[in-house]
Amino acid sequence: MEDGVDHLAFERNKAQFDVEDMKIIWAGSRQDFELSDRISRLVASDPAFRKDDRTTLDRKELFKNTLRKAAYAWKRINELRLNEQEAYKLRSFVDQPAFTDLHWGMFVPAIQGQGTDEQQQKWLPLAYRMQIIGCYAQTELGHGSNVQGLETTATFDPKTDEFVIHSPTLTSSKWWPGGLGKISTHAVAYARLIIGGEDHGVHGFIVQLRSLDDHLPLPGITIGDIGMKFGNAAYNTMDNGVLRFDHVRIPRNQMLMRVSQVTREGKYVSSNVPRQLVYGTMVNVRQKIVADASVALSRAVCIATRYSAVRRQFGSHNGGLETQVIDYKTQQARLFPLLASAYAFRFVGGWLKWLYMDVTERLQANDFSTLPEAHACTAGLKSLTTTATADGIEECRKLCGGHGYLCSSGLPELFAVYVPACTYEGDNVVLLLQVARHLMKTVSQLGSGNKPVGTTAYMARVEQLMQYHSDVEKAEDWLKPNVVLEAFEARASRMSVACAQNLSKFANPEEAGFQELAADLVDAAVAHCQLIVVSKFIEKLQQDIPGKGVKKQLEVLCSIYALFLLHKHLGDFLSTGCINPKQGSLASEQLRNLYSQVRPNAIALVDAFNYTDHYLGSILGRYDGNVYPKLYEEAWKDPLNDSVVPDGFKEYIQPMLKQQLRNARL
Amino acid sequence: MEDGVDHLAFERNKAQFDVEDMKIIWAGSRQDFELSDRISRLVASDPAFRKDDRTTLDRKELFKNTLRKAAYAWKRINELRLNEQEAYKLRSFVDQPAFTDLHWGMFVPAIQGQGTDEQQQKWLPLAYRMQIIGCYAQTELGHGSNVQGLETTATFDPKTDEFVIHSPTLTSSKWWPGGLGKISTHAVAYARLIIGGEDHGVHGFIVQLRSLDDHLPLPGITIGDIGMKFGNAAYNTMDNGVLRFDHVRIPRNQMLMRVSQVTREGKYVSSNVPRQLVYGTMVNVRQKIVADASVALSRAVCIATRYSAVRRQFGSHNGGLETQVIDYKTQQARLFPLLASAYAFRFVGGWLKWLYMDVTERLQANDFSTLPEAHACTAGLKSLTTTATADGIEECRKLCGGHGYLCSSGLPELFAVYVPACTYEGDNVVLLLQVARHLMKTVSQLGSGNKPVGTTAYMARVEQLMQYHSDVEKAEDWLKPNVVLEAFEARASRMSVACAQNLSKFANPEEAGFQELAADLVDAAVAHCQLIVVSKFIEKLQQDIPGKGVKKQLEVLCSIYALFLLHKHLGDFLSTGCINPKQGSLASEQLRNLYSQVRPNAIALVDAFNYTDHYLGSILGRYDGNVYPKLYEEAWKDPLNDSVVPDGFKEYIQPMLKQQLRNARL
Repeated sequence: MEDGVDHLAFERNKAQFDVEDMKIIWAGSRQDFELSDRISRLVASDPAFRKDDRTTLDRKELFKNTLRKAAYAWKRINELRLNEQEAYKLRSFVDQPAFTDLHWGMFVPAIQGQGTDEQQQKWLPLAYRMQIIGCYAQTELGHGSNVQGLETTATFDPKTDEFVIHSPTLTSSKWWPGGLGKISTHAVAYARLIIGGEDHGVHGFIVQLRSLDDHLPLPGITIGDIGMKFGNAAYNTMDNGVLRFDHVRIPRNQMLMRVSQVTREGKYVSSNVPRQLVYGTMVNVRQKIVADASVALSRAVCIATRYSAVRRQFGSHNGGLETQVIDYKTQQARLFPLLASAYAFRFVGGWLKWLYMDVTERLQANDFSTLPEAHACTAGLKSLTTTATADGIEECRKLCGGHGYLCSSGLPELFAVYVPACTYEGDNVVLLLQVARHLMKTVSQLGSGNKPVGTTAYMARVEQLMQYHSDVEKAEDWLKPNVVLEAFEARASRMSVACAQNLSKFANPEEAGFQELAADLVDAAVAHCQLIVVSKFIEKLQQDIPGKGVKKQLEVLCSIYALFLLHKHLGDFLSTGCINPKQGSLASEQLRNLYSQVRPNAIALVDAFNYTDHYLGSILGRYDGNVYPKLYEEAWKDPLNDSVVPDGFKEYIQPMLKQQLRNARL
Repeated sequence: MEDGVDHLAFERNKAQFDVEDMKIIWAGSRQDFELSDRISRLVASDPAFRKDDRTTLDRKELFKNTLRKAAYAWKRINELRLNEQEAYKLRSFVDQPAFTDLHWGMFVPAIQGQGTDEQQQKWLPLAYRMQIIGCYAQTELGHGSNVQGLETTATFDPKTDEFVIHSPTLTSSKWWPGGLGKISTHAVAYARLIIGGEDHGVHGFIVQLRSLDDHLPLPGITIGDIGMKFGNAAYNTMDNGVLRFDHVRIPRNQMLMRVSQVTREGKYVSSNVPRQLVYGTMVNVRQKIVADASVALSRAVCIATRYSAVRRQFGSHNGGLETQVIDYKTQQARLFPLLASAYAFRFVGGWLKWLYMDVTERLQANDFSTLPEAHACTAGLKSLTTTATADGIEECRKLCGGHGYLCSSGLPELFAVYVPACTYEGDNVVLLLQVARHLMKTVSQLGSGNKPVGTTAYMARVEQLMQYHSDVEKAEDWLKPNVVLEAFEARASRMSVACAQNLSKFANPEEAGFQELAADLVDAAVAHCQLIVVSKFIEKLQQDIPGKGVKKQLEVLCSIYALFLLHKHLGDFLSTGCINPKQGSLASEQLRNLYSQVRPNAIALVDAFNYTDHYLGSILGRYDGNVYPKLYEEAWKDPLNDSVVPDGFKEYIQPMLKQQLRNARL
C-alpha cells in the first residue's frame, strides 16, 4: 500500500473465511494462482504498461501507444523467456486490445487447425517469431452471423495453378477483422471456392496483405481502419479493418487444405480428417469466452463492492457517519447476485475447460457421440454468461452512482470493451436458437433408444420431472442443493416439452413453427443454460474444498445465484407449476437472509480475485479504499485543466459576455 | 434525399396509416410539429452544426467545438429573434451537451423560483442576456442523493453583513455541476446556513466564481474540470466541475431569500411563501426528463428499426435475397416492445406536462392536496422511463449486430450521453423507495376518510381488486383495454398490500421494516408506475384521434406495451393470483399476433418521429436506407487512415518483424 493506510481494513477483519485459500479456489489451482499473481505484478510494476492516461489520448496517439506496448510486451516475453501460457497471461494483464490478440488467438490457431502438416511447417515458425503478423478475415460488410453467405470468391486458375481472390461487391468487403486495418502482414481470409464455375462453399486461404519491406498493401489490395468504436479507449486501441481484393493471386498451396484439397488438376477432394473438427475449435474458443466473462464480471463487481463499502449516504444520526451504501438491502439485492454470478461463471468456465479436453480426446478416438451436446452447451453458455456480464458491468457502474460515470472509475471502459462479446463468435440470440434446436431434437428422440447425454441427461427423467411439485415448506428448504436442482430441472424440461408440443401443431415445425415460436424457444434455451450453471456450481461444492470457512461461503453464493434466478424468472417456475407462489416468496425470504450472511464477507470475497490496482484500473475500486483524495487528484490531470482559462474562451465566450457576438466570426 | 434513391420506399409503401397525421400526434399538436420541424431543419442544414466528426476529437478540441457551437447558436437565436421555446428547441437539436443547458435549465430557474422579486430584478436580466453565465452547484464529492448531508458552509458574519462560503473538508468540494469547470462566471451554490453557531440547514446562494474581465477564478476559489466521462464525445463536451471555497465572502443579499431570510441582525425568518413550492419545481424538472426519455428511446428505436429492414441475414433460397432481420420473431420480440415504449413514454410525458400545470395552479390557490401524489408519481415515472430508456438504447445497439458497435451507428454516443439520467435528479432506486413510501401511506389510510387521489385512485377499490381474477378466455380478450387495466390494477394493489402486511410484522415498520423489505417495496413501486403508463396510454386512445388508420396503430402499440410488461413480469401477475398460467400464455400468443400487425407499419411508425438525419446522427438509421456505401465511405475519414503506414510502425512494428527488438528503445 503506497500511502500506507488500508481504509478497508475494518471490512477485511469481518471476513469469516481464509481469503488466501479462496484465492486458490478462484484461480483454479495453486499453480494457476502463482502464475497469475507473478505475471500481474510484473505488469503492474512496470511503468511502460501504465494505462491510466489512455482515455484522454486521441485515436492516433492511442493506437501508437498500443503498438509500443505490444512491442515492449514481446520484448519482455523474449527477455524473460516466458512460455506460451505466461506470455498469454502477460498480454491479458497488459489489458489493452491489440493486433497480437488476433495473431495469437485466431491466425495461429486457424493454421494449426486447418493447415496441412506442410503448411504448418512453413507458416507457423514465421508466425511464432512474429516475422509475419496475421489476422482472421472472415466477416464482411454485409455478412456476419451467416458465414455460408460470404461473397468473397477464390477462383481456381488451372493455367497458373493459383487462386484469384476477389471482392465482387461492396458488401463483400471484409469488415471488422481485428489487426487488419493497419498492422497485419498476412490474413487467413475466408472466401467461396470456385472451380470451373462450381461453388464449393467457404474455405480459408492464407493471403499476404502487405509488403514485408515497406508495409505497403500489395497490388490489388485496399485496406483501412473502419473507424471509431464504442467507448473511451476500449477497442479503439485496435485496428479493426476493411479489406477489398481486386483479383489478387495466391499460389494454390495457400488454401488451408487439412480438411479438403484442390489438386493441381483442379479436382476438389475431401480428406479423411473429420469435418466435425471445426466444432471442436468452436468449443475451445467459446470456453475461453466463458472464462473471460467471469474475469470481466468479477472486475466490475470488485470495483462496485469496494466502493459500496467506502461510499456513505443518508442515515446519519446526530452528526455521526452516514450509512455505508453496501448496507442497504436494495444495493445488496443488485450487487450480491452479481458477486455470486462471477463465482458461478468461474466454476462453469473451469468445467468447460475440462469438457473441451474431453471432447478433444474423443475426437482423436473418432468418437463424435458427445459433440452435438458439447457444442450446444458451449454455445448456450457463451450466450448466457456474456449477456449477464455485459448487463452486470453496467449495473455495477450504476451501483457506483454518479462517480461510476467517470472514466477514472474504470467501469465505462470495462463496459465498452466487453459488450462486443455479446455479438462476436456467434450473436447471443442466434446461439440460443441453436441450443433450442438441440433441445427440440433431444425431446423428439426421448421415446427412441437415443439417451440424452451430458448436460441434457436430466431429460431422460422427463416423465418424473413433468410430475414434479416442489415440496419446499420453509425458507431454509431452499438451501438444499437437490431441492434447487430439481426445481431448475423441472422448469427447463417443461419449457422444452411445451415448445415441442406447440411446434408439433405447425404443418412445418422445423421452419415455420421454429420461426413463429422463436421467442419461446429462446426462453427454453435460457432455462436449460441456467440449469447447467447452477448444477455445475453444486457439483463443485461436492468436491473437497480446503480452507477455513471457504466452502461455507461458496455454499452461500451458490444459493444466492440459484434463488436470484428463481426470483428473476418466477413467471417460468410458476407458470410451469414447478413451485407455488408461497414457495416463491419463501425463496425471496431466504435470499434476504443470504444477503445478510454474505455482507460481512463481501470485501474479502472480491479480494480473493487477487486483482492488482493496475489491472482494475479504477479509483473507486482501489484496494486501500482511499477513494476521495485520489478522485480529486486525478481530476486535475485532465487536459482541460492544462490552463485555467480554456482554449476558445477568447473567441467564443468573451464576445458572448461582452455582448459582442453580432460581429464575431464563429 | 441527396442521393435520390429511397432504399426503404418498399417498406414505406406497406404502411396502413397516414404517417403525416401520426407526426402530429407524436409532436403533440400541429403547432408543436411545425415548430420542431422548422427548427430541426434549420439546424440540420447549417454546416456550423455538423457533428459527425466529433467522436474523433480529443478533449480540448471537443470542448472548444462546444464553445463555438454554443456561441454560434446564441448568435443565431438573436439574429432570428427566436422566442424562448424556439431557442430551447434549437439548443436541443444542436444535440451537444453544453454549459448553456445548465445556465438556462438550472441557474435561471433557481433564481426565478427561489429569488425574491428584488433578486430577480437584479440577476435575471444579466442572465437572460448572457452577460453572466451560471451553473447549479449542489452535489459534492461525498454527497449526492442526500442533499441534507451537504458539508459546504455559509456562515453569517454580522460585522460585515456577509456570508462566508467555505469548503471545510475534501468531501465537501462541489463535484459534478455542469458548466462549472471552465465557463460559468456565477453559481447558485448550496451550503449549510450557519448563524451564531446554529445550523439552519441547506440554502442557496448566488456566488460569483470568475472575474468578468479576465475569467480568472476570484480569490479563495479553486475550480477545475473533473475529467473524462463515459463514451465518445457524449458528456465530454461538458465541463462538469470541481469547486472549493476558502472563506469566500458574499453580500448578505446573495442568499436566495424567497422562502427564508436572514436579516441584517442575523435573525433567521421564514416568509409566508409555502415551502412546498420546491416540490412543484421537482415535478417540472422530472416531467421534462420523462419527455426526454421518449425522445432518446425513439431515436434509438428509429435507428434499429430502419437498419433491421436494411440488414439481411440467413434464409436465402437459390441465391435469392436473404431475409430482412426485422422479419425474425426474435428481433420483433425485442424491438417492437421498445417501439411501443417510445410511444407510451411520449403520451405519459404529455400527461405529466398537464399534471405540472394543474399542480402549479393549485399551489397558487394554496391547494396542496394533490402535491404528494403528484410528487410521487413524477418521481416514479422519472425512474421507470429513464431505466427503460437506458436499457432500451443498449438493446437497440445490440439489435444492430456488430455494426451497432461503430460510433457511426450513433448508438454508442446516444447510450453514453443518456445513461446519467438514471442517476441525476434522483437516483432511480432512491426514487422508487419514495414512491413506495407514498404507496404504504396510501394503503395505511384506506380505512380512514382520506380518499386516494390521482394515480392512486384505484386503491379506493382495493377490496374489489383483492377479489379480482382475470376472466380472459381467449387471446383476443387481452385486446380489451379494461381487461388489461384491471389486471395491472389488481397486480399493483396486491403487491402494495402484501408489502404493507409484511411491514406490519416489524416492531419498527417505518425504519427497520422498510429497510429489510426494500427490494419488495421497489417491486411494488414499479408495478404501480407501470400501471400509470398503461392507463395513460389507454386514456389517450379514448380521445378523438384523427387520421387514416392512426388510432388503430396506436391501439396495437398500446396492447404491445401492456402485454410485453405482463410477459416480462409474469411472476408478479401469477404469484398475486391476478391471472392464471393459461391466461399468461394467451397473452404471449396475442403478443406474437400483434408483432405481425405492427411489422408492415414499423418503418412508417419511426418515420413519424420526424427526425432529420442530422439529429439521428446514424448511418444505420439513415432515412434512405443507403447504409453500406455510406458506412464504407465513413470508415476512410478516421484519422488512422490519414496515412497508409501508421505512425509508430517504424519504431515498434518494423523492428518486431525484422527480429530487431532486442536493442530497440520502447
